[in-house]
Amino acid sequence: MTEQPAPLSHQPAQTVGGFSERELIARISARFPSRPDWLLVGIGDDAAVVEPERNRAEVLSVDCVVDGVHFDRAFVPPDAIGHRALAVNLSDLAAMGASPRLALLSMAVPSDLPVADFDAIVDGMATLADRHRIPVIGGNLTRTPGPLSIDVTVIGTIKRRQALTRSGARPGDELYVTGTVGAAAAGLQRLRKSGGDTSPEDAAAGRYLRPEPRLRMGILLARNRAATACIDTSDGLADAVHQLAGASGVGATIDADALPLDPDARDRYRTTGTIPDDVLSSDDYELLFTVRPRQRRRLEPVARQAGLAVTRIGACTSDRQVVATHTGAGRVVTSPLGGGYRHFR
Amino acid sequence: MTEQPAPLSHQPAQTVGGFSERELIARISARFPSRPDWLLVGIGDDAAVVEPERNRAEVLSVDCVVDGVHFDRAFVPPDAIGHRALAVNLSDLAAMGASPRLALLSMAVPSDLPVADFDAIVDGMATLADRHRIPVIGGNLTRTPGPLSIDVTVIGTIKRRQALTRSGARPGDELYVTGTVGAAAAGLQRLRKSGGDTSPEDAAAGRYLRPEPRLRMGILLARNRAATACIDTSDGLADAVHQLAGASGVGATIDADALPLDPDARDRYRTTGTIPDDVLSSDDYELLFTVRPRQRRRLEPVARQAGLAVTRIGACTSDRQVVATHTGAGRVVTSPLGGGYRHFR
Repeated sequence: MTEQPAPLSHQPAQTVGGFSERELIARISARFPSRPDWLLVGIGDDAAVVEPERNRAEVLSVDCVVDGVHFDRAFVPPDAIGHRALAVNLSDLAAMGASPRLALLSMAVPSDLPVADFDAIVDGMATLADRHRIPVIGGNLTRTPGPLSIDVTVIGTIKRRQALTRSGARPGDELYVTGTVGAAAAGLQRLRKSGGDTSPEDAAAGRYLRPEPRLRMGILLARNRAATACIDTSDGLADAVHQLAGASGVGATIDADALPLDPDARDRYRTTGTIPDDVLSSDDYELLFTVRPRQRRRLEPVARQAGLAVTRIGACTSDRQVVATHTGAGRVVTSPLGGGYRHFR
Repeated sequence: MTEQPAPLSHQPAQTVGGFSERELIARISARFPSRPDWLLVGIGDDAAVVEPERNRAEVLSVDCVVDGVHFDRAFVPPDAIGHRALAVNLSDLAAMGASPRLALLSMAVPSDLPVADFDAIVDGMATLADRHRIPVIGGNLTRTPGPLSIDVTVIGTIKRRQALTRSGARPGDELYVTGTVGAAAAGLQRLRKSGGDTSPEDAAAGRYLRPEPRLRMGILLARNRAATACIDTSDGLADAVHQLAGASGVGATIDADALPLDPDARDRYRTTGTIPDDVLSSDDYELLFTVRPRQRRRLEPVARQAGLAVTRIGACTSDRQVVATHTGAGRVVTSPLGGGYRHFR
């Protein structure tokens, strides 16, 4: 049986709507071939069965990214969508100090999604998963009349008493942040303007598109008991400071001049003398953590092993206020740190 | 400070768009207060931390329900949406023979959803969770420009070698199904016609709206090694038979006359002599399982303890064909059992 292929110019892009659910699941599982020996039943049954890791607590997180809310297909390439969907979850594990073990993937896919994009999304996720040796052991696939949305559940492990929470900070603890602040916001802005057409050398665009979860840093902070509290900056630095301080029952003073600002943000700070809101809410997926001054010496070897810059940006206080200080025209100005109430719109 | 309340008739229904993400999460966690002693860190940190159960394997499943695909807000009340979202996951655990332990909840919510509906959805889920003593220990909440969608991840536990898979059936094993077949399809049809306005005594509508995961049955089948393979009928009986037979590398012959049809389906079968497609694809969330004839005596006490009818509906064969037999006008008619290829639309 032969069919005359239609002329190329008339062939519409193949969409996922032309495939069955099982064919699409087969495309996913082909990209996640790893079957560690602790995986007793993998993809293809009613549920997966795993052997837990001995003498470890389990750390569980689920996060969802939705087209038009957390990314925009107009300027985020499909592999970056897959990368981000897993990275935001791994960042939560990093903030707890946990080693990632496995992931479950649940996708709601509009039927007009080109199957090449579907494959690229899965590939972007698999590339990040491979780098951290995380098997995707199960999941769910459904069509949706709405936007593409990707739910990932991750499970990590940690020694029982080493989990880093948000609530362990005390007044006097010093506040540190990894990497830089504001890169993701700058990258997002340029991607929006250019419709996704940025140079591969645009580091800030790369930071937005493919954030690197700070797993090694989190694991080392926990293992060496170097940090007293930790959170990731998934909703920006200001929100992270507020969350950590609130959970710990302390205040915080941030030295705005000490912030390791991304070059773009630094220029704007120099010009205006205030840190723009988009910088404070930049979803950089860095770690914000507190260190007891007496244990400060533990931090340097941890940062070196993790190969990551850490910057002291302030300290916890006993008065429950979260403020930023800024030295301008020879005097210190104190103002509340942004990061307020946002409606669910 | 006093404000004159607007006249009642002018007050629009309060929607989730008027709340912050944290306020909505607080509404959820208030409804899931349980903090078992193995829960080391619960809702409110970057991730949850749990102590695994000793000497048990873990069974993991994630499922998603989307408005307009798996339910329709036009005729499914919000508490039933919450019930179904958890029930479909628990049904997967039931099919593995696992005891449910915990759940994670990830919701993508349109901002025009009335907050009363939001609360009722959470309440419907919590009522089912309470009945099975399953804490919701974490999750995610995001807005979406698309339809309401709910992702639930469940984790159960089971003794290492007792997990029921789809692949353990051999030729000669007998096929059984719990409960009845076709009720959910009949209920769905009536709900669609009436716009959700069915009598509380409409058992079929109840079966569609609030399916009961067959957890006790699954646990007892596994514990007593009464079944050789098991699957739930979440995509209907025909699909379940095809999946189980395919995974086990066997064929199956179903005796159509033996099927425990729901009254509505039975009437239509009597009239037409064929089982309607919608009955064969009815998502009844029953269990389909196989029993080795020599172990048949183990089944009766299990069914009695579970308080659930089980019906023998056929047997596994060595020829890989999945067929139904039907006795009409004194002769046996054999035909392929429905449950074919479906596009992802």
